[in-house]
Amino acid sequence: MAKMWRGIIEQYRDYLPVTSATPVVSLCEGNTPLVPARQLSAELGPQYEVFLKYEGLNPTGSFKDRGMTMAVSKAVEDGATAIMCASTGNTSASAAAYAASAGLECIVIIPQGNIALGKMAQALMHGAKVFAVDGNFDDALRIVREITNNYPITLVNSVNPFRLDGQKSGAYEICDALGDAPDFHFIPVGNAGNITAYWRGYVEYHKHGKAARRPRMMGFQAAGAAPIVRKQVVPKPETIATAIRIGNPASWKFAEDARDDSNGMIDMVTDAEIIEAYQFLARREGVFCEPASAASVAGLIKLMKSGFFKHEAPAPGSKVRIVCVLTGHGLKDPDNAIKHSAEVISVPASADAVLEHVALARR
Amino acid sequence: MAKMWRGIIEQYRDYLPVTSATPVVSLCEGNTPLVPARQLSAELGPQYEVFLKYEGLNPTGSFKDRGMTMAVSKAVEDGATAIMCASTGNTSASAAAYAASAGLECIVIIPQGNIALGKMAQALMHGAKVFAVDGNFDDALRIVREITNNYPITLVNSVNPFRLDGQKSGAYEICDALGDAPDFHFIPVGNAGNITAYWRGYVEYHKHGKAARRPRMMGFQAAGAAPIVRKQVVPKPETIATAIRIGNPASWKFAEDARDDSNGMIDMVTDAEIIEAYQFLARREGVFCEPASAASVAGLIKLMKSGFFKHEAPAPGSKVRIVCVLTGHGLKDPDNAIKHSAEVISVPASADAVLEHVALARR
Repeated sequence: MAKMWRGIIEQYRDYLPVTSATPVVSLCEGNTPLVPARQLSAELGPQYEVFLKYEGLNPTGSFKDRGMTMAVSKAVEDGATAIMCASTGNTSASAAAYAASAGLECIVIIPQGNIALGKMAQALMHGAKVFAVDGNFDDALRIVREITNNYPITLVNSVNPFRLDGQKSGAYEICDALGDAPDFHFIPVGNAGNITAYWRGYVEYHKHGKAARRPRMMGFQAAGAAPIVRKQVVPKPETIATAIRIGNPASWKFAEDARDDSNGMIDMVTDAEIIEAYQFLARREGVFCEPASAASVAGLIKLMKSGFFKHEAPAPGSKVRIVCVLTGHGLKDPDNAIKHSAEVISVPASADAVLEHVALARR
Repeated sequence: MAKMWRGIIEQYRDYLPVTSATPVVSLCEGNTPLVPARQLSAELGPQYEVFLKYEGLNPTGSFKDRGMTMAVSKAVEDGATAIMCASTGNTSASAAAYAASAGLECIVIIPQGNIALGKMAQALMHGAKVFAVDGNFDDALRIVREITNNYPITLVNSVNPFRLDGQKSGAYEICDALGDAPDFHFIPVGNAGNITAYWRGYVEYHKHGKAARRPRMMGFQAAGAAPIVRKQVVPKPETIATAIRIGNPASWKFAEDARDDSNGMIDMVTDAEIIEAYQFLARREGVFCEPASAASVAGLIKLMKSGFFKHEAPAPGSKVRIVCVLTGHGLKDPDNAIKHSAEVISVPASADAVLEHVALARR
């Protein structure tokens, strides 16, 4: 059984706050591929290699599973009988799946109205109790905090510290796959937990001699939800990239530290740039991600166009290695995919009718 | 770079019809987890271990990617400039993604009407040209055959033999993870290509000394689409498990051979049994799959209830190992998930209102 992947806790046990007494709740998350981005690499030139860390291939379709396996394992160790979160998206899907695996109850609180039911399909299917409260997201979070303070229920929103511990495993995997840290790590920034966790992972791996270097951390916010870039809270964040539509990030300070300690940057990209990257990835690289995920690649394309990489000459015989994290699978948001694609073409049932629309040389 | 997963062709090159001249088109498919099914194992008893081969974690969300990397790589080697298929589901999604990665055009023909647009989101997003023809599925396939016969376009429907070659890799991975083949291999049967490919993979690995034994192949058709079980073509197959709604399987004879040569069986499960397994997997194991995928586990549950395993005593000190293949991710079909789940509960924005619906001990 030596080669069997057993999830990030078993793989990286030495780097995580678990003991032999921790009951491991895992769906075999992690071990996601580092897909070579041929077109992006070609556009940058022969001295560059771009890889996509395709986190959409985690069990529930997003990177959240890395943190949730830790949060739920620790909840079980702590004697919790239920977990709870406020989320309309990837967090609730992940929480519900891990709760199901552990035999815990999962309670999800969402604000009423404006919630596409498709977004909740995973949480509902995994048997979570989903409550729509007559209020906004802050009301939902307030109720979660009040109940988890008074009952043996574990809060698994991002304030749960074990979530970030688990998310560090993404950095370990990248170093293990490449044999070292990359030169640049591009990542979408919303609540800023993921950039924080990746940086911690890289720093620890470097400290333990598992990587010779540390990457420059390149975070990208959506222009309509860019509090770190603008240096002020955004009261009403707006962007198509709903997974990073955050006006006051929980890990704001940590993200700034990651940026500064790594000689990196946190910049922003417009919704148009995000959609362009989202389409480029699907149509040219064959990789379908959530709109928010594409913020990392939108940032890379923005820097390419600005001439940023002209100053980045690699050591002779080596290449500049760039990793872009794609945080969630495109199947999470089919509506946006259809909205940003060509339409189905209706034709009579004949080969000639089809061929009128495609220019082809005869065999 | 020793530990980097580069897709099934690089991993299993010696077992596949490729040469150094074959341009490998890969999205790093394969390497999917073998998730321990704790609840199913517990229900069977301490002498049994059940694993779920979670093929929904391939790049486009289904096992089709294993065959498509082969079909598209060979198409490029053959000088094709485009690929083509008739499919409303997983095949078109996979074809479109690999075509995008290879820089080929992808043409998809579907019958008009009755097509949920969400099902086509992936093909459209990956830039395929999708034609809805005024006819049925047979008309669509006829047009695909006519055009691919006359133009340098490769047909990538399941008649393309390289598809089955690639799909054998699922069996190799299971043997590599477990250190041997399992005792039983449960799998949904629709067009019967996948049971054929898995059996070929197990036989080859056994022949090459990579596995000491071969599993019993346990195929399950949907009762409304069970031509092999009923020993006759089903003119109008009907089942909720759309991915196996096939009345005249292309690999019918091969599937019977796999069954007979392995001392296995091909049986059928009702839609009710499929839905029960689909819900059990999501709510008890934390694994969300397509309805069709759940046919494998529905078959396992059916045999458990019938007492089938009472006669299967493992060798002393060992366990009976059972692998169930889950062919596609549940996110492919959010509508069915919502239809088979509890509803969202609307409440006022207070903790007490939520607590009325959950029975909890105070901390």
